[in-house]
Amino acid sequence: MHFVAALDRVDEMRCVLGLFEGVTTGAADGYARMAGKPACTLLHLGPGLANGLANLHNAHRAMVPIINLVGQHATYHLRHDAPLTSDIEGIARPYSNWVRTCCAASEAGNDASDAVTASRMTPGRIATLIVPANVAWSEGGTVTPVTMARKPPVLSGGVIDEASLALRSGLRTGILLSGNALHGPGIAAAGRIAASTNAKLFAPYPFARMERGAGRPGVERIAYILEQATEQLKEFRQLILVGCSAPISYFAAPGKRSGPVASDCKVFTLTTPYEDSVAALDALSDALSIRGTRPLEEPLVRPAVPTGAVSLSGIAAAIGALLPEHAIVIDESMTSGRELMPATKGAPPHDWLANTGGSIGIAMPLAVGAAIARPQQRVLCLSADGSGMYTLQALWTMAREGLRVTTVIFANRAYGVLKREFSYLGVGNPGPKASALFDIGRPDLDWVSLAKGMGVPASRIHSLDDFVKALRVGFEAEGPILVEVDL
Amino acid sequence: MHFVAALDRVDEMRCVLGLFEGVTTGAADGYARMAGKPACTLLHLGPGLANGLANLHNAHRAMVPIINLVGQHATYHLRHDAPLTSDIEGIARPYSNWVRTCCAASEAGNDASDAVTASRMTPGRIATLIVPANVAWSEGGTVTPVTMARKPPVLSGGVIDEASLALRSGLRTGILLSGNALHGPGIAAAGRIAASTNAKLFAPYPFARMERGAGRPGVERIAYILEQATEQLKEFRQLILVGCSAPISYFAAPGKRSGPVASDCKVFTLTTPYEDSVAALDALSDALSIRGTRPLEEPLVRPAVPTGAVSLSGIAAAIGALLPEHAIVIDESMTSGRELMPATKGAPPHDWLANTGGSIGIAMPLAVGAAIARPQQRVLCLSADGSGMYTLQALWTMAREGLRVTTVIFANRAYGVLKREFSYLGVGNPGPKASALFDIGRPDLDWVSLAKGMGVPASRIHSLDDFVKALRVGFEAEGPILVEVDL
Repeated sequence: MHFVAALDRVDEMRCVLGLFEGVTTGAADGYARMAGKPACTLLHLGPGLANGLANLHNAHRAMVPIINLVGQHATYHLRHDAPLTSDIEGIARPYSNWVRTCCAASEAGNDASDAVTASRMTPGRIATLIVPANVAWSEGGTVTPVTMARKPPVLSGGVIDEASLALRSGLRTGILLSGNALHGPGIAAAGRIAASTNAKLFAPYPFARMERGAGRPGVERIAYILEQATEQLKEFRQLILVGCSAPISYFAAPGKRSGPVASDCKVFTLTTPYEDSVAALDALSDALSIRGTRPLEEPLVRPAVPTGAVSLSGIAAAIGALLPEHAIVIDESMTSGRELMPATKGAPPHDWLANTGGSIGIAMPLAVGAAIARPQQRVLCLSADGSGMYTLQALWTMAREGLRVTTVIFANRAYGVLKREFSYLGVGNPGPKASALFDIGRPDLDWVSLAKGMGVPASRIHSLDDFVKALRVGFEAEGPILVEVDL
Repeated sequence: MHFVAALDRVDEMRCVLGLFEGVTTGAADGYARMAGKPACTLLHLGPGLANGLANLHNAHRAMVPIINLVGQHATYHLRHDAPLTSDIEGIARPYSNWVRTCCAASEAGNDASDAVTASRMTPGRIATLIVPANVAWSEGGTVTPVTMARKPPVLSGGVIDEASLALRSGLRTGILLSGNALHGPGIAAAGRIAASTNAKLFAPYPFARMERGAGRPGVERIAYILEQATEQLKEFRQLILVGCSAPISYFAAPGKRSGPVASDCKVFTLTTPYEDSVAALDALSDALSIRGTRPLEEPLVRPAVPTGAVSLSGIAAAIGALLPEHAIVIDESMTSGRELMPATKGAPPHDWLANTGGSIGIAMPLAVGAAIARPQQRVLCLSADGSGMYTLQALWTMAREGLRVTTVIFANRAYGVLKREFSYLGVGNPGPKASALFDIGRPDLDWVSLAKGMGVPASRIHSLDDFVKALRVGFEAEGPILVEVDL
């Protein structure tokens, strides 16, 4: 409460309320991905932190900076084991890179500064600072300037030379990009390397942020399904990893391989996530003497505005046809979204944000954070219905803050991904109990009412013409809207 | 998935789907409170467990039995650090009394049996069994019978004698009841002791389940607010604890005491939560030679059916006037609910379930579990609006399962308890930022639409007459309804 009171004395802090902590942590992730700097969540004791954990899992995998400030009982109250007492450090640890409990007002400034510094290490880190109530209300606090996070070490010339040799070898080579190699100067340098060496650019299925569209280098996303990913990579004899590990299946399956990379493909790490990928790509460009080369650029090619009955390809085409320049697309469309990235690859330049950790319920919270970080840009939030139900409270924050987010719900009334896994694992046909656990109809969720209940105007579309109309409205609106697509 | 497939081969298992894991763990708590035996949750990897943690915090404080079955990657897939990998044991530990990862199909039967046994120790425990995918799909499993949990040790006669002496001392004595001392033979024995010794029966503010109403012993709940609780207890020179610790404040505050018990009050522990309170109360009855005494009984006294404008006392009176016999009341009405327990103390016999851990968002999930445990009984679910938004997905499960739950939302459009804490801590008047964090209006939540969106018929009432009508409909309905009370 003393921290809350202090917020009114610090003009630089903007406060955004979430009605559930999973909204707050997911929004902090979206903010970090688009602003390139941390947001701070304010969570209440163990349960408040616990409610935010699943989206911290995703943020941890996105490797973004976040600072969690968690309120704790007064230190002398802990021994009484009051109802809200629990092991906050224990709850924080699995998804935090840095955890500290502040022990005295005199140290609070240092601790806060250390938390910011920790969160801004390369890449981004999750820093959780636990503040007991009596530390917050005691006198004697000081403000400590934030120390700049140490830069990652400069790569040895040997690694650059080896990558350069590999790219000149004539062997078919893929470059797998992650982290900040997928946007800004990173993707530009990668695009130059691809243009001058005939290497192909890939992204892992889970990525935090990709700059793409017309005028930007084309990057192919590795498919979720092992067999499709294996097909994508089969011709490649070399794979250069930039800021990531080799691609791996989300889940093991009896008798299947762990990942899609061919056994005779040489995998070479240019940078780990903890090294400076942009500097490495620049150094590699120098080694290849291609600093002046024009990067590969996708041409501006948009699908025609579709018409007629609703189909997944029609929905994808409509988005490809209408996506505004500099839009931020949040994609948690799950099994309904396969055609979205191909349909938008030649749309005006935009950002694409994906689910990085596989914990569903990130789309709408991410959209909140992205919209706050980039108020001038349009956000298109694509969510499966099952995923959307995890953190639907985010719609209320969109309404309160007047965020320019168009949310599209793909309502197939099923956990499609679970049905697919069940079949993929060869367990047979699901019986009535199993089927009922994959089916989220009976009763059908009515997203128009759910959105209305949280102050977001919404419509249900019955044709592609309706969908096109609804998207146009959303892309012009001064606040959020929601469109339910019945599949 | 192999476990899901197996569910169709075991008739004894009933499967209930939640659209968010916090619904599932809260429902397991409600089931355990009313059925007196564990339900099993099925959660998916670290994030699925994480989403269920906050209500496991409450269940842990309720000391109910729950078994969590958490899916894990195939053991050989862990080394690849696939996106959904995390430290599941670490996430489980803060709110589990028992955690184990199953290492081989041959051990799965033993592990499952041990989990059930662990959950059924006295009182109830949270047992979390983590099952890797390849353990689930390998051959060689066996079924192991469940070992009965060891009974708690018999209390020494010395403790009983001491309590008996205290009760005969003539000093004003309170008996603080918790766990199974608040229902069934426990509350009956406590009622006999109170009737024959003039001791007063109390319950802590957080309790799991109290049997109350006409024909049952009256038990006074210790107030949430320290000053009120202190007033309640000030005349008592002795306090006998049955299955609990001495009452303590939810939060410390500068210059305030930690709890309401007077410093000259002698606190005496009859039983800890880990001992058999019912056996101890029976032994105490024997020591007092009062086995045949009639327990104290509340008379059947109901408020008149109220009419006119909406008020908190009117809402409480309507509930007191109409509550059906054997109803199960779930109370997370927070700051709106002060008058509910006094207004219902003479209603026909019923159960009252409270929030035990202070983590908000338990009411609707608890209602789901209670209604499944007791399909013949009516459930009245009283939720604050801020709390309700945490786990509103529970409404969908009520609709799917056709549960006879009447949910009342107290819509004061604020986190009333936070406003009160802010003022109580003497931080001054909240500025605009702080105020905005306590206010959940702008836009107002429309619970009628939210309920409709999940298939639950709902209405908003504008007078006590409307409320009475809505309650009558709810108490006769064959499925769930929701009533929004605008405050």
